Amino acid sequence: MGLPVITLLSDFGLQDGYAASMKGVILDICPDARLVDISHLISPQNIASGAFVLYATYQYFPPGTVHLAVVDPGVGAERGAIAVRTATSFFVGPDNGLFSLILKKETWWEARRLENTQFRRSPMSSTFHGRDLFAPAAAHLARGAGFSTMGPVCDAVLAHWSEPTITKGEIIGEVIHIDRFGNAITNVQSKMLEELGSLDKWTIKAGKSEVGSIKRTYGRVGAGKALALTGSSGFIEIAVNRGSAAWELKLKSGTTVIFKPADS
Amino acid sequence: MGLPVITLLSDFGLQDGYAASMKGVILDICPDARLVDISHLISPQNIASGAFVLYATYQYFPPGTVHLAVVDPGVGAERGAIAVRTATSFFVGPDNGLFSLILKKETWWEARRLENTQFRRSPMSSTFHGRDLFAPAAAHLARGAGFSTMGPVCDAVLAHWSEPTITKGEIIGEVIHIDRFGNAITNVQSKMLEELGSLDKWTIKAGKSEVGSIKRTYGRVGAGKALALTGSSGFIEIAVNRGSAAWELKLKSGTTVIFKPADS
Amino acid sequence: MGLPVITLLSDFGLQDGYAASMKGVILDICPDARLVDISHLISPQNIASGAFVLYATYQYFPPGTVHLAVVDPGVGAERGAIAVRTATSFFVGPDNGLFSLILKKETWWEARRLENTQFRRSPMSSTFHGRDLFAPAAAHLARGAGFSTMGPVCDAVLAHWSEPTITKGEIIGEVIHIDRFGNAITNVQSKMLEELGSLDKWTIKAGKSEVGSIKRTYGRVGAGKALALTGSSGFIEIAVNRGSAAWELKLKSGTTVIFKPADS
Repeated sequence: MGLPVITLLSDFGLQDGYAASMKGVILDICPDARLVDISHLISPQNIASGAFVLYATYQYFPPGTVHLAVVDPGVGAERGAIAVRTATSFFVGPDNGLFSLILKKETWWEARRLENTQFRRSPMSSTFHGRDLFAPAAAHLARGAGFSTMGPVCDAVLAHWSEPTITKGEIIGEVIHIDRFGNAITNVQSKMLEELGSLDKWTIKAGKSEVGSIKRTYGRVGAGKALALTGSSGFIEIAVNRGSAAWELKLKSGTTVIFKPADS
Repeated sequence: MGLPVITLLSDFGLQDGYAASMKGVILDICPDARLVDISHLISPQNIASGAFVLYATYQYFPPGTVHLAVVDPGVGAERGAIAVRTATSFFVGPDNGLFSLILKKETWWEARRLENTQFRRSPMSSTFHGRDLFAPAAAHLARGAGFSTMGPVCDAVLAHWSEPTITKGEIIGEVIHIDRFGNAITNVQSKMLEELGSLDKWTIKAGKSEVGSIKRTYGRVGAGKALALTGSSGFIEIAVNRGSAAWELKLKSGTTVIFKPADS
Repeated sequence: MGLPVITLLSDFGLQDGYAASMKGVILDICPDARLVDISHLISPQNIASGAFVLYATYQYFPPGTVHLAVVDPGVGAERGAIAVRTATSFFVGPDNGLFSLILKKETWWEARRLENTQFRRSPMSSTFHGRDLFAPAAAHLARGAGFSTMGPVCDAVLAHWSEPTITKGEIIGEVIHIDRFGNAITNVQSKMLEELGSLDKWTIKAGKSEVGSIKRTYGRVGAGKALALTGSSGFIEIAVNRGSAAWELKLKSGTTVIFKPADS
């Protein structure tokens, strides 16, 4: 076992010291913690995008890692605050669907409501639960606090956008994340397409644009041409070779992406 | 005691490796240092903004933390270079007011001029004191060098923008930082307002906009409406619910914010 | 000896968790690794810019540091993958010239092709060699794997843009990096100018703009005026005092910069 690893994901940005405040709180409680930023540039309040980035990343970290994630449009309102344990990892954050993709993939998990007042800062601000509630809980977990001491067992929100639907043989998905390069990642995994037949048999329409079939690499189409391919996290993404699919095809979070069987 | 923590704050940006050069220098001197970025996206040469972000963050770090801060419009010119010790922390950087908010809050501090040539790189560049002067000094402090070995005791610049003024019962403050969400943080602490009467009694004008009284949470006004509230660091900030106060009210660093007692 | 240090440089950006995936892979293999970001904001696929930032930074890190660098327009195509050892450091990344500036400076180095399949993730994705090939190799090196176990000795690409040319006494260089402040760093080192005569004797033309002779500090010209000076990494850079040279002189990566002896 190495030192405990805590990752951080948020929409706090990097300019204001908000993420650093969480890190200070963590190091004060758990001086040995190894801190790794996943992203603090999730687009503000975009839970689906945060959920995707966390999903695409968490599985590469060592067993025992604590993932602290705060994309929290409901701070001060009625959403819950949870810690989740899976077979390999811990997750701490608001109960708003941020962990949906992970919990649907994991075969076993348990959630607990963060009700232990020993594991929060006092007084707790009404606007910065990342620093005052979630960071201390994550730090105590990393330091070895028993998972059951976090609070009572509870359910967790599993959000609707994490699942594509199937209608008349067509898969209706949506864009859940736009990356730095303008690639539009969908909520459809290539595994799902393969289970319904060969990866080659699907034709894809993203927003108003026909994108054709799924290619192996960007270079399979000419510069400036759109394509679909399996991204490095296993989800189908829409790209433009040497260009930005988001910009050129007018795709954004929530845009519908339809997968039609080629023989339909 | 955990490993020594060094935080870094600058206006160097994240693209060019400038912050990383400082980290390399630090790790070469103090291999055990835990490095935590507070921000490298302070708007260029904006000392007030850097001072605010450092103030809002430093208090969450463990005792003994060394805070290295470089927002330094005067590099190569006549400003001093200092280390400061408070009851709990160390600070290293240019003597230009960057530590003002902290030093006015702390009840005890001592500053020393960085004159010990053993604690700097040689030859020292004329343009990058962060790497050649401040980073080595911070690393030697973190490694355990006695504070008095830094150089002779000196005074420290306490800048004017860190203090609002009071005229005819009105408090005249200013915007000292714009955050990622477009919130405009002022130099007026809610504590000051409370000392002069209830938090409810003040009516606020930010730039040319009447913002009304101080609310508890963003949701107390409709979407798109401006409000004032106590930010997570204790300063009054001007916000727009689900919008950007900086953009919509044309606020920027230095914009005047006036607090009028409601009964005036 | 402290813990092993691994630096990371890429054009992956900071929003998507790509850099964090590499860090997770590293910590899973080498839990003791100290991770330091040099930059993940290299402009996409700009190898020269990545090479410059790495060059300007690597020399400040402790002996034994492993530098993981991925700016990789050729992923999935025919470029090689290498590890390089110098007298003090290790480098891991695509063999596309990213290490050119360093290898031309170092008096001794040895490169090996990354052919050891034990040091890569399996299955290896076709789009994310940073995570699946380069990060594991860097982690194994940091953990103490013998350099010769990486794979067979090979050559390394040394790119043309890293060397200015001399024609009729004039030095023809180019811009290799634009920094946060809009300074345009050239591939001409002040050392080269000094070897050919005094630093004072050169007159510089950057793109279409006459910039005059080399100054000591930004303040030697009026606000808004262009100048050339020796940057903190030893390369000549073009700047505008209190402005952006890139914007005002229309400079970008690849723009020609000509150094004329004043007596010509």
